[in-house]
Amino acid sequence: MAAAIILDCDPGHDDAIAILMALGSPEVDLIGITTVGGNQDLDKVTYNARAICEAAGRPDAPVHAGSRRPLVREAIDAAGIHGRTGLDGVELPEPTRELPDRHAVGWMIDEIMAREPGTVVLVPTGPLTNIALAARLEPRIVDRVKEVVLMGGAHGPGNATPVAEFNILCDPEAAHIVFNETWPVTMIGLDVTHRALCTPEIQERLCAASPRLAGVVNGLMDFFRATYRNQQAFPDPPTHDPCAVAYVIDPTIVETRRAPLDVEIRGWVTYGMTVVDLRAGENPECRTKVGTGLAVDRFWNVVEDAVRRLPQI
Amino acid sequence: MAAAIILDCDPGHDDAIAILMALGSPEVDLIGITTVGGNQDLDKVTYNARAICEAAGRPDAPVHAGSRRPLVREAIDAAGIHGRTGLDGVELPEPTRELPDRHAVGWMIDEIMAREPGTVVLVPTGPLTNIALAARLEPRIVDRVKEVVLMGGAHGPGNATPVAEFNILCDPEAAHIVFNETWPVTMIGLDVTHRALCTPEIQERLCAASPRLAGVVNGLMDFFRATYRNQQAFPDPPTHDPCAVAYVIDPTIVETRRAPLDVEIRGWVTYGMTVVDLRAGENPECRTKVGTGLAVDRFWNVVEDAVRRLPQI
Amino acid sequence: MAAAIILDCDPGHDDAIAILMALGSPEVDLIGITTVGGNQDLDKVTYNARAICEAAGRPDAPVHAGSRRPLVREAIDAAGIHGRTGLDGVELPEPTRELPDRHAVGWMIDEIMAREPGTVVLVPTGPLTNIALAARLEPRIVDRVKEVVLMGGAHGPGNATPVAEFNILCDPEAAHIVFNETWPVTMIGLDVTHRALCTPEIQERLCAASPRLAGVVNGLMDFFRATYRNQQAFPDPPTHDPCAVAYVIDPTIVETRRAPLDVEIRGWVTYGMTVVDLRAGENPECRTKVGTGLAVDRFWNVVEDAVRRLPQI
Amino acid sequence: MAAAIILDCDPGHDDAIAILMALGSPEVDLIGITTVGGNQDLDKVTYNARAICEAAGRPDAPVHAGSRRPLVREAIDAAGIHGRTGLDGVELPEPTRELPDRHAVGWMIDEIMAREPGTVVLVPTGPLTNIALAARLEPRIVDRVKEVVLMGGAHGPGNATPVAEFNILCDPEAAHIVFNETWPVTMIGLDVTHRALCTPEIQERLCAASPRLAGVVNGLMDFFRATYRNQQAFPDPPTHDPCAVAYVIDPTIVETRRAPLDVEIRGWVTYGMTVVDLRAGENPECRTKVGTGLAVDRFWNVVEDAVRRLPQI
Repeated sequence: MAAAIILDCDPGHDDAIAILMALGSPEVDLIGITTVGGNQDLDKVTYNARAICEAAGRPDAPVHAGSRRPLVREAIDAAGIHGRTGLDGVELPEPTRELPDRHAVGWMIDEIMAREPGTVVLVPTGPLTNIALAARLEPRIVDRVKEVVLMGGAHGPGNATPVAEFNILCDPEAAHIVFNETWPVTMIGLDVTHRALCTPEIQERLCAASPRLAGVVNGLMDFFRATYRNQQAFPDPPTHDPCAVAYVIDPTIVETRRAPLDVEIRGWVTYGMTVVDLRAGENPECRTKVGTGLAVDRFWNVVEDAVRRLPQI
Repeated sequence: MAAAIILDCDPGHDDAIAILMALGSPEVDLIGITTVGGNQDLDKVTYNARAICEAAGRPDAPVHAGSRRPLVREAIDAAGIHGRTGLDGVELPEPTRELPDRHAVGWMIDEIMAREPGTVVLVPTGPLTNIALAARLEPRIVDRVKEVVLMGGAHGPGNATPVAEFNILCDPEAAHIVFNETWPVTMIGLDVTHRALCTPEIQERLCAASPRLAGVVNGLMDFFRATYRNQQAFPDPPTHDPCAVAYVIDPTIVETRRAPLDVEIRGWVTYGMTVVDLRAGENPECRTKVGTGLAVDRFWNVVEDAVRRLPQI
Repeated sequence: MAAAIILDCDPGHDDAIAILMALGSPEVDLIGITTVGGNQDLDKVTYNARAICEAAGRPDAPVHAGSRRPLVREAIDAAGIHGRTGLDGVELPEPTRELPDRHAVGWMIDEIMAREPGTVVLVPTGPLTNIALAARLEPRIVDRVKEVVLMGGAHGPGNATPVAEFNILCDPEAAHIVFNETWPVTMIGLDVTHRALCTPEIQERLCAASPRLAGVVNGLMDFFRATYRNQQAFPDPPTHDPCAVAYVIDPTIVETRRAPLDVEIRGWVTYGMTVVDLRAGENPECRTKVGTGLAVDRFWNVVEDAVRRLPQI
Repeated sequence: MAAAIILDCDPGHDDAIAILMALGSPEVDLIGITTVGGNQDLDKVTYNARAICEAAGRPDAPVHAGSRRPLVREAIDAAGIHGRTGLDGVELPEPTRELPDRHAVGWMIDEIMAREPGTVVLVPTGPLTNIALAARLEPRIVDRVKEVVLMGGAHGPGNATPVAEFNILCDPEAAHIVFNETWPVTMIGLDVTHRALCTPEIQERLCAASPRLAGVVNGLMDFFRATYRNQQAFPDPPTHDPCAVAYVIDPTIVETRRAPLDVEIRGWVTYGMTVVDLRAGENPECRTKVGTGLAVDRFWNVVEDAVRRLPQI
């Protein structure tokens, strides 16, 4: 049975690929997309999410705009990686459907409460503001959500600071709320996503899989590769967010381990760092899991397969 | 023109008097009451709010239940002051109206958005969780709310710690959100409310003002006096929350000063402390005000007057 | 019997008066002066201490230079109040005695260990770096010191931040060490020293008491008054450090209360704030005291008397 | 030329091997040993240091006792790993030389100041309290010390908390001082020392190298292996402190990388964590280095060689 997911994102080049996957994969029943200020401001990332759905031939996919800013801290963005629009480097069609005047958090709560308990997977790939607000506004969702599978954090080095990953650093207090609730949480962090490098060969495969989207894929990946080379000395861009969707499609693609998980919300040089306790053996009772490895070939197969299945009108 | 207020509270003995005032005063148009876990858990304080409305002959006053717990920190309560039920010491009629199945935060947002900008005063007298969530979920309310008049904080000594007041300590991160938004905030803290001592003489006046409510008033104040004597060596109980309502009724009752206002959310011995900068002269541009004094006689006159006007069937 | 004191200071205009008092008062046996970077850098304040002794006709008073910088945090200074030299506005004779090549902390430890237990009072009127280092380097001094009487901190508003006083903010971690050791500590903070305003009348009395030092006193106080008016809107300068010496001379001059005392070393807006718990009644077992009031007339009498007794060659 | 080192330690089973190495290696000119409360209290670790020198046939090696407790935080110990005495499991001869009545910090300063600049290497293998105090008491040593080579910290997982290593966690503020001074610092942390596992085969080699010390070596390592198996699920004990001495003997034994280095002194879940920035390329100007790998065979060769050269009367 396909997993019913809500993809909560801030596109963003890698979020864009994650949206394509969620739209194309037969293993995913995309309830809808929610957006959150992160890589760029809320208006831009919401527009981007709608434009990607349009480009994918799926303008019907529900998109709802969520939080404009983090809970407590001031907002930061990732314009250095994703450009002024959040999706620099690619031409996308204008969205044809209107954006509903409904806040993402309220919509998300209603969708979860309307479905069978244990059926909805939340897949946040941006700051955790929306998810944290939903848990506080309607605590009953915590028991009803099947799992939170998030892209964010790191056990090893960070990217936004020596030890903090960007999504978590955007809203550490929201992450603290999400990590410390009682639902199952799987953190797909940099330890996983830095292995998902989109080489030119991979890029070609994705273009071949969907000739109609080749321009979009090339636009996305060429820009993303250029900024990652320039900013972080990566040869090819780590395609973070699709890793979380891939895990939902097939959990065996990401190697995970059960381990206690927390986030530092007071430190000076560690603010926004995720703290994973990998010292002891794995405790089967532990509610939180962290990604520790990636089956790289199978990961790209899944991405390619989902892209191939998008409408090819 | 009467001020349209939403009273956001966690009754609580002094909250109960604040509700009576808001129901009775002709200067106040009570849009409704919202509740928040604080002095006791959400279910108890919501029941208490409804029971006080019932006792006051105003079962029609809208009551909506809000946040069960603070945003980030673990919940604390004030059972030592307010007892196991949150309103120990008084017998109240059972509420006759059903509690609407609508979250206080959503209701509050809709009420604010439905009214003219600049007409609604928020009067939180408990932890600031609901107000913070509302500001994050619908940022447009921030420009529409006329003012936030809150009971909480202290410039001088605290009550829950040497420097922190209970309401703010319950949810310091929520207070950080509320204080740092762009709306006008007036903080009525312990520097004001510790002057509002309900002596036996005052108590008698209140009972005389509403013979029908004399049992309720005596039950409330006898218990409150006993715990305050026992816990904090006060001769008579400081009637905190009515001070915020009194300020709404007549701002000249509370002496205030414009001054920068913040809250400490990282400290070890100062967590939850409100920080008021009274060093420089008053800046007329400053958006935040703090209460620095109370016209005690006029304060009690206002309380008495409001109680007298409640239905005396 | 005169109290044997070590005056640990960072002159500084008010420190200069404190030195004159310690040199002149028959109630004080000044073992020596130690210096610490604070109001200005170590070289300047050490020079100033020696020059004041020279001006006072007491070049024999031992002066030892101590800590150049705080334990953990980066150094700040008070050039805005004390000027570029730390004693701007006054002409002082050049010191005639050489500065001993001995660190103040080592010298202080030896003096304490060489004397009878319970006979030495430490009087720090600058950052607490030297005292903290001495306690850590030779823990046995903690039981031998009779009392630490410090100028610093505040129960009410601060001066360097809304809640922190300058001396403590200079080295909060050192203050944490000193406050949490087992010796008796009396904190003479802004609550006391902001009452010790040196009016023009007082200034005239001090000049008349020592015509030889009139130029020095006028130079000190005219500059100090000007910066305090300019920086902090005081009509006359609060003569902080002499209050600590006055307390040593006659403890009844300062009203004190036993109360728990701590310092915040983690907070963002409260870093360096002293936290005094005045909520409960006074506990006679409490090891720490805070100054809460000043007998202003008797204070100035003691200052005047000490100045009068200085050599009048 | 042999490196002149001061070994600042808290023996401790692995410290004991480090002492044997420093006494035996021809590449090391051991100026002396200083002690600090850490694995056990100061009296115990000082006794242990002297007893190890005695057992090694080198009772003449200068040992000076230093800091009893951390600068700011309360003391912790590692009795779970090193037992009640700090060296449980081994019988050592009583020290024959008296302990000098001189504080380690003063002695260390004098030794450094008396020698040519750039000739002394400090090798702390316990909490950094002594080194921090020395830098604050005599700032001139910072320019004179050739390098600080410390065992402590971790880039990857910690041992005392999920992210903090024991030595640094013992006194994070001292580590902050040492890391932020201007001297060269090389941190040999768990990333290196967890590769230095003393297998039974290695243990036999060390015993064969010094039959006279075989009982001591076996006593040390049997106990250390047992507690590490029991407490941290290691098959064989990581012999931490000798790695720092090995690096002094031959820097090529430890793979290092220049990288910015700091320590968290405010965090809740990250207090005492070392933060290494390995994101960018290596900057040759960077003053701090971290160990990233160990040439395991050559490491044990160096340990064995040093032990073999100890007096074999």
